Parts: sequence; C-alpha cells; structure tokens
Amino acid sequence: MSAIEALITELARLPGIGRKTAQRLTFHLLQHSPEQAAKLAAALAAVSERVRPCEECGNLTEEQPCTICRDPRRDPAVLCVVEEASAVAVVDRATDFRGRYHVLGGRLSPLDGIGPESLRLDHLVARVRDGGIREVILATNPSMEGEVTATYIQQLLAGHDVRVTRLARGLLMGGDLEYVDGVTLAHALVARQDVP
Amino acid sequence: MSAIEALITELARLPGIGRKTAQRLTFHLLQHSPEQAAKLAAALAAVSERVRPCEECGNLTEEQPCTICRDPRRDPAVLCVVEEASAVAVVDRATDFRGRYHVLGGRLSPLDGIGPESLRLDHLVARVRDGGIREVILATNPSMEGEVTATYIQQLLAGHDVRVTRLARGLLMGGDLEYVDGVTLAHALVARQDVP
Repeated sequence: MSAIEALITELARLPGIGRKTAQRLTFHLLQHSPEQAAKLAAALAAVSERVRPCEECGNLTEEQPCTICRDPRRDPAVLCVVEEASAVAVVDRATDFRGRYHVLGGRLSPLDGIGPESLRLDHLVARVRDGGIREVILATNPSMEGEVTATYIQQLLAGHDVRVTRLARGLLMGGDLEYVDGVTLAHALVARQDVP
Repeated sequence: MSAIEALITELARLPGIGRKTAQRLTFHLLQHSPEQAAKLAAALAAVSERVRPCEECGNLTEEQPCTICRDPRRDPAVLCVVEEASAVAVVDRATDFRGRYHVLGGRLSPLDGIGPESLRLDHLVARVRDGGIREVILATNPSMEGEVTATYIQQLLAGHDVRVTRLARGLLMGGDLEYVDGVTLAHALVARQDVP
C-alpha cells in the first residue's frame, strides 16, 4: 500500500469521516500544506505518547494527577460522575461546578459486552469509602444506557454515607414544548420548581 | 499549550473540520484508540516525508517518475491537463483514458495573485514541443477560473502542431433538465450528438 493510500485508510477510520472526505483531506495536506501534515503528525504522536488517564479521576492528562485533582481550590468532597473524559471539559466549561470528577470510561451496555467490571466502578466505591465524599452527582448521558448506569451506581452506593444526586432532566432552553419527547416532559413535570 | 489542545488546533485547520469536530476526533482517538493515533501519526509523517510531485507530470508520487509516467502501456502522445493532483485519480478511475497527465498545480486567478507563472505551464509547453504530443485534453474544472485557465492554455498552444480538446460540458447523468443552469444547457445544445 502506498503512503497516500495508507493515510486515506487511517483518516477514513475516524468517526464521521468517510473515504471521500479522507481523500479530500489527504490531497489538501499534500498539495497545500505538507508542513501541516508534519505538524499534525507530531501533534498526534505527542498525544499518543504523553496523554494518559488520570490515576485518580480518569480524566485525560499529561501529568499525574490531573490539574483538576491537584487544584486545592476545588472541593474534594463532591464528585461528578461522567461516562467519558470528554464530558469533563463540557461540564467544567458550562457550569460553575468546582468539585472533582470521576470518569467511568463508558456506560453499562450488556448487549455490547460492557458490564460493571469494564467501568471504573470499584475505584469509585473506593473513593467514596476512603475519601470523605459528601456528594456524588451522577452526570451520565440521558440515554437508555446512561440511565441504567446511573441506577446501577445509585444501588452500588446505597450502603454508603453519601448523598447521591442526578442531573435534572427537563426542557431544553430555547426548545419548544410541542417537540419535547414524553419522557423528558414527564421528568420536567415531576421536578417542577416553585417560582421564587 | 497542552498536547490535547495542540492536536485539536491542528485538526481544526483541516478544511471542513471545525473546532467541535476536532475535539470529538481528539477525544475519540484518546479514549478508544490511542494506538490508532500513533498509526495516523506514522501515516502522516510517511506521507509528508516520502510523497513529492512527479517531476514529469506533477502527480503526487513516492517514486520518480510516477507509476503513470512509467507505464509503457500508456500512450505518451496524449496529455490530460488537470488543475490538481487529486483529479488524476478521479479521471483515471472513472474513465478509460490511458494517456498521461499534466498537473498544473492550480488555476489562473488574478484576484488571488495566481498568474501563469504560478502554474506548471512552461513545463507543459516544453512537453508539447519536445515530446511528440499528438493531443492535449484540457480537463480543468468547469468553474470560471477553470474556463479562463483552459482558454489561456489553448492560446498558449495555438502555435504548436497539436490537437487541443476540452471535456464536453453537458447534462449531468441522473439530473433533471429543469435544474440545469443556462450556461450548461447552452453548451449541451451546441455539443448535441446524433443519435446512432
């Protein structure tokens, strides 16, 4: 296989990038910016060598523990549990949450062979048991698997002296009531809040 | 800048890939396939080191001259002139053209500062003069710049003993007459063919 063909094949493995797009990207790099191809290669190599999951929370980091776990201004007694490391940045940017995180590394999905042992659940229980954790916020995705995972963790932590909460389900800001699915609407009604 | 941030920035430089997509790709590589990141890095590095324009035709290649220019079964007397190297593979796959190519490396675009001296035009004229070329097929893109480029080359080769042809403009297969633009339709009428 030629170098060009090999690059097209590798790019086409990325999610959301088909063969046509991979070809277009390859020729773009070759024709207009060979030095950009070298830079991108270096950036990928650096990431694959240097970035590892944080041993404490599972967030992706170049240092152990990660900047969030090392930050003394963050409340170590509140853990926000997310499925993937990508969610850490999302929650941290959008909210004023200033506790710490726990990345599961996926969600329960028995059909795909992903059981509790595939997720960082033992470590979560250990953190709760050893660490003076006051609250665990379950921020798994609002999908079927995410819900199942959250329920599983809820039961797992039931015997421990810790408050377990979940992100509220409800209406999307800017959304239209007519287009909200029934499950979300039911949740929004149950969790309705007093107008101050 | 962290390694993750650097990779997102590099990916977001690619055409058609915004910051959100770059983030998604980065986290995909980190979470699910760090070994794929290493492979992609190697493929990019190999391409940026080994792939160069063919000295004869301008096609991208790992060897000099490229496989097309070396192929003895191809007719060396017919040249297909294209704007970019990516077009070589497209024409070669879709048609039964078995001559050779000449890649211009762009199109005339005075507003962008791309004049005749930026394209491989001298080399084209030299090939026509020295090489016993019987026909030059102008396969520039059917855009304003492509048309101007084709016309320029046509004039450039006017004094030489060579047949100069252009790809036919006409209806798209599977298209609808109502949605064809006027210029194309006019071309299709002028170039109408006898029903056999």
